[in-house]
Amino acid sequence: MKILVTGAAGFIGSNLCDYLLTQGAQVAGVDNFSTGHREFLAQATAHKKFEFHEVDLLDFERTRETLAAFTPETVVHLAANADVRFGLQHPRKDLDQGTVVTFNVLESARLAGVKKFAFASTGSVYGEPVIFPTPETCPFPVQTSLYAAAKLAAEGLIAAYAEGYGMKGYIFRFVSILGDRYSHGHVFDFANKLHANSANIEVLGDGKQTKAYLHVSDCVAAIWHVLGSCNEKVNLFNLGPDEYITVDQSLDIICKVMGMHPKRQYTGGKRGWTGDSPFIFLDCARLKATGWKARKTISESVELTIRYLLGNDWLLKRR
Amino acid sequence: MKILVTGAAGFIGSNLCDYLLTQGAQVAGVDNFSTGHREFLAQATAHKKFEFHEVDLLDFERTRETLAAFTPETVVHLAANADVRFGLQHPRKDLDQGTVVTFNVLESARLAGVKKFAFASTGSVYGEPVIFPTPETCPFPVQTSLYAAAKLAAEGLIAAYAEGYGMKGYIFRFVSILGDRYSHGHVFDFANKLHANSANIEVLGDGKQTKAYLHVSDCVAAIWHVLGSCNEKVNLFNLGPDEYITVDQSLDIICKVMGMHPKRQYTGGKRGWTGDSPFIFLDCARLKATGWKARKTISESVELTIRYLLGNDWLLKRR
Repeated sequence: MKILVTGAAGFIGSNLCDYLLTQGAQVAGVDNFSTGHREFLAQATAHKKFEFHEVDLLDFERTRETLAAFTPETVVHLAANADVRFGLQHPRKDLDQGTVVTFNVLESARLAGVKKFAFASTGSVYGEPVIFPTPETCPFPVQTSLYAAAKLAAEGLIAAYAEGYGMKGYIFRFVSILGDRYSHGHVFDFANKLHANSANIEVLGDGKQTKAYLHVSDCVAAIWHVLGSCNEKVNLFNLGPDEYITVDQSLDIICKVMGMHPKRQYTGGKRGWTGDSPFIFLDCARLKATGWKARKTISESVELTIRYLLGNDWLLKRR
Repeated sequence: MKILVTGAAGFIGSNLCDYLLTQGAQVAGVDNFSTGHREFLAQATAHKKFEFHEVDLLDFERTRETLAAFTPETVVHLAANADVRFGLQHPRKDLDQGTVVTFNVLESARLAGVKKFAFASTGSVYGEPVIFPTPETCPFPVQTSLYAAAKLAAEGLIAAYAEGYGMKGYIFRFVSILGDRYSHGHVFDFANKLHANSANIEVLGDGKQTKAYLHVSDCVAAIWHVLGSCNEKVNLFNLGPDEYITVDQSLDIICKVMGMHPKRQYTGGKRGWTGDSPFIFLDCARLKATGWKARKTISESVELTIRYLLGNDWLLKRR
């Protein structure tokens, strides 16, 4: 089984490559290192069934050639702008990196005869949901961020390709993912801030924003499981845990692991930033019905992530 | 009030420009004549409060300059690829003309300080709905065509801009529109086929596909009405009539007006083409609650449209 992974040098992508290799797959990783790290690929590149291609996926011809040469049966498209909070500072970035890049990979996949196309979407496509936990079939939401709008656009493209060209689509609406090689997000930001100042810490919003997080090992196992067991035209799944945690509770765990007791200063308001959703909790019954379940709790995931960052502080410093 | 209309030389765009001018607005029309007709602008160009700009909206710099020079308060973005059925033959076209062009106009509007951004989306974003009539808040649909996927992507961009930058968004999910200057769609195709051969006519699908149609005069009145009376961050409305009609019934009216009795040959199946929705009927209660109502029935609209085409057969011949 030949699988091509875009965003292979990223947090989730590199974990997925390692996992696929342990499952016996032949893996091609693609990345342009815009946010990925060469260090994350050390384990994969040591494996004889792994090959790497440095490609800017905005370059359609290079993308097309890369897929045509490897001829994967399956593509897992993870490459994207993950800079959710700062979309409003550069509105074209999400369009390019979220939507146009997805089109380039999808069209290249079609031309290369790819059978299955998997995509990392986001629970943020639910905007500010009115039902919790939020199922895949919740009321048609209104978008609130450029990041999610770009992901929703990509979902639509994949579903239309599945309908029109017979390629099977696998769309995963992720909650935030934690774990080894995690390199952006609230745990990262808190760790960075506490490194700089252990006495005081700024918390975006009121600290009561409530979110669900999943460990990356559970995330990559879910992708592999669904690709192997689901064969609808469009296979659409929320991907998250059965629980949630507030930003304040998350910070409690981080402070405990780091042995710090900073005074918290809240920027105020229900949202951390414009377009932030104050409550994210996805209904994952559809995914669990396929036999998958999360193995790690959110508390474990936060603790493992902060321990990973403390042991890999080159990541914090490089930022 | 200065309003800029993209797709101004198109069917709906030219009708909208004429209508806005009767309402006293100062109107700038933009088109590249890729599918629009100069003839449609004859009435508007005779008006002193109308100006026209020939611009390819894929060219961001030209688009930005045009909006910066006119500084409209309101933009009505209608330009798009309207070639719904043939999306699969050129998958990049809907992405470019539906999504990238919308981004270019939207970003130019933001830079020019535009207050209200209106957009022609489509009932096709509901894919194959599970509720009829279909409300704006129906279960989150899966896309079935590249055309609708591109429209949904544009909706998401507009909503995210409204959330992030404070510009008000007006999104109209149209049923198919009929009336003067109508120049593509099933009435156009049937008229063309009957001109060529009045004895036999091919009908795509089983003829039982059921659709709602709205007269263009009701459509442009709705846009104007909503722009003047609604001021939410995102103003999202289905736009259609309270009734529907089958393809066969539509053909009955066309044949009657043309005085022909062709034998019908059905290509078969529930859908006219891949991605066609066998039943489109939108719940427009939200729009009607603002005080708007349709003045023309579907039967009247079909009849007026076929009479228009018979009196303007240069349109049929040019095709």
